[in-house]
Amino acid sequence: MNSVGIVNTQFYTIEENIKLESGVEFSPITVAYETYGTLNKNADNAILIIHALTGDAHAAGYKSEDDKKAGWWDALIGPNKPFDTNKYFVVCTNIFGGCSGTTGPSSINPNTGKPYGISFPVFTIEDTIKIQKKVLDYLGVKSLYSVAGGSMGGMQAMQFSITYPEFVKSAILIATTSKLSPQAIAFNAVGRNSIISDPAWNNGDYYDKEIKPDRGLSIARMIGHITYLCEEAMYNKFGRRLQNKEHYDFNFDIDFQVESYLKHQGQIFVDRFDANSYLYITKAVDYFDLENKYGSLENAFKMTKSKFLVISFDTDWLFPSSQAKEIVNTLMRLNKDVSYCEIKSPCGHDAFLLEYDVQSKIIGSFLNNHIKGDNNG
Amino acid sequence: MNSVGIVNTQFYTIEENIKLESGVEFSPITVAYETYGTLNKNADNAILIIHALTGDAHAAGYKSEDDKKAGWWDALIGPNKPFDTNKYFVVCTNIFGGCSGTTGPSSINPNTGKPYGISFPVFTIEDTIKIQKKVLDYLGVKSLYSVAGGSMGGMQAMQFSITYPEFVKSAILIATTSKLSPQAIAFNAVGRNSIISDPAWNNGDYYDKEIKPDRGLSIARMIGHITYLCEEAMYNKFGRRLQNKEHYDFNFDIDFQVESYLKHQGQIFVDRFDANSYLYITKAVDYFDLENKYGSLENAFKMTKSKFLVISFDTDWLFPSSQAKEIVNTLMRLNKDVSYCEIKSPCGHDAFLLEYDVQSKIIGSFLNNHIKGDNNG
Repeated sequence: MNSVGIVNTQFYTIEENIKLESGVEFSPITVAYETYGTLNKNADNAILIIHALTGDAHAAGYKSEDDKKAGWWDALIGPNKPFDTNKYFVVCTNIFGGCSGTTGPSSINPNTGKPYGISFPVFTIEDTIKIQKKVLDYLGVKSLYSVAGGSMGGMQAMQFSITYPEFVKSAILIATTSKLSPQAIAFNAVGRNSIISDPAWNNGDYYDKEIKPDRGLSIARMIGHITYLCEEAMYNKFGRRLQNKEHYDFNFDIDFQVESYLKHQGQIFVDRFDANSYLYITKAVDYFDLENKYGSLENAFKMTKSKFLVISFDTDWLFPSSQAKEIVNTLMRLNKDVSYCEIKSPCGHDAFLLEYDVQSKIIGSFLNNHIKGDNNG
Repeated sequence: MNSVGIVNTQFYTIEENIKLESGVEFSPITVAYETYGTLNKNADNAILIIHALTGDAHAAGYKSEDDKKAGWWDALIGPNKPFDTNKYFVVCTNIFGGCSGTTGPSSINPNTGKPYGISFPVFTIEDTIKIQKKVLDYLGVKSLYSVAGGSMGGMQAMQFSITYPEFVKSAILIATTSKLSPQAIAFNAVGRNSIISDPAWNNGDYYDKEIKPDRGLSIARMIGHITYLCEEAMYNKFGRRLQNKEHYDFNFDIDFQVESYLKHQGQIFVDRFDANSYLYITKAVDYFDLENKYGSLENAFKMTKSKFLVISFDTDWLFPSSQAKEIVNTLMRLNKDVSYCEIKSPCGHDAFLLEYDVQSKIIGSFLNNHIKGDNNG
């Protein structure tokens, strides 16, 4: 059995004001988190796993005996897995502004007794990692053996290594970028427009309403899913195959399998995600721009002391390999310790949640060599 | 002066029933069309220009003395231009199902006195060209010297050469494909979902309502515009530049120029286009699949007698060059007379409406050689 078994999501509340990058001071913040494995005596075997856009703290294991669905990165986290819980103390938190246990726009504002809605402050990727750092402090973690994430999680891992250079020993950046392309911003912007233009959004105040902005949110999710796949994945999964029919319907029902897939993804998403959280988190992602924030990518990474593992996927057109290579080249120019691997995959951006065999080997080997390196040092 | 000058859109009504590919028989159909130049005695100097997804019959010239905006392909149509109105009788019609003068879902159903809405029949690309053929017959055209179009217009041009092999002497296929990829279907499907899930769509019955499905339609248009540009165009036009500000706003207003552009495109679109027409026309585009319709692309083109000019743009990722090359390779295998040019452009799919210098030369030369060929023949 190489599962972490049954896990309970835990909660920690930061009572003191946190100054956000916008200048707003905000409290209290409850953070949902899970841990797997045990913190060692030196408190230096912790690995922080960071989820992507719509993920949560439940990265590994099961929620109950009957639970059939393991955490979102269970393939990589557990005894004898790359993030080996026999060796490491693995932590995963739900993002600030999210809707899976951590304080976000759907949480009750203690000052009003009502959900924050869009009175919730707009935040940045750096804000989200400062809040995660508070949780690690609370858990007694003295340094991070590694911080790892895919997509938006990779942005946060990068930012962690920059904001806390002494604290972070290594960072694993998967399918990520130091800044979104205008095209990626465009997709996020249309998704947000779809939510905001849904009459049920009601300026973010819909939590006690019967009709929620599910229509807008599901369109946003459908757009997202197109960008997570790639042409090759689309051909492999659907091609131009029709959905449960031999001939065109000549009406506006679903004709093609790809339509059915997207519609389904949109429909199931609204049951687990909050439209306002989608607005806030995509905005944080759009704002992320290390070059602009630090003057240059060199400046951004100059002070880091982490070892880096950068992984990209050749068919990822949302955060393409060229963007990963920019990070890698910058780190190399700065004489940082960086390993890079472009994985061939037919899965597009989604690959970081699918291509486990290769990722396991690369990540496992990186973390092991890392130990060796430390022993030598 | 190389303009066709002031033109009036004209109308022709097909009274007899047209049997559509769905099996539905439909009449009457009024078609909006414009003509430039004069039909010669042999009635064999006509060129049919076919518009793309949201175009109209106004391909060249001006609507009045004060009109500042020329027709959508004015750069290519006029005296001494590639589609030389001194030589050719140029015809352009608005597509069946459209909303710029030709009968479509917003037209009044004479049997009910109310707009068709979604009682309008779902149609195919072949249906649209059969209707255009009726207009050409009415105008006395005996054969088409050429039929030309970009994007969906190219699909129709292709279909014209297949359905009427004796009638079509040459076909100019620009930025087009013999079938949409699943990704392109996906974008159309999300656009349609956006319209249909807009409460104001009201099952297509909104013409007498105060609020129309503008929100859904504008989201659909924004999605479309992302696919018409390419990464390079996005970087050139917008980069990550902010819109009229130096710093992030930390709210949900527009931050980036690309957001502003898309929002504007969405907003102006709803003033000129009908949401139901968008549903019908994108459906026709999704259904277009020559391989499936004829068993193979070879079978589709086997009977054609046209010369072909195929143009693609290297940065077009909606209908990429690889799809154009499939058409070209098929035509070559069939020993058809085909010229192919991949134009380097930073403009993506939009290039067929922007890159006029190169297109002018290629199209002009193709049409001239074509004459020469005919004289020799």
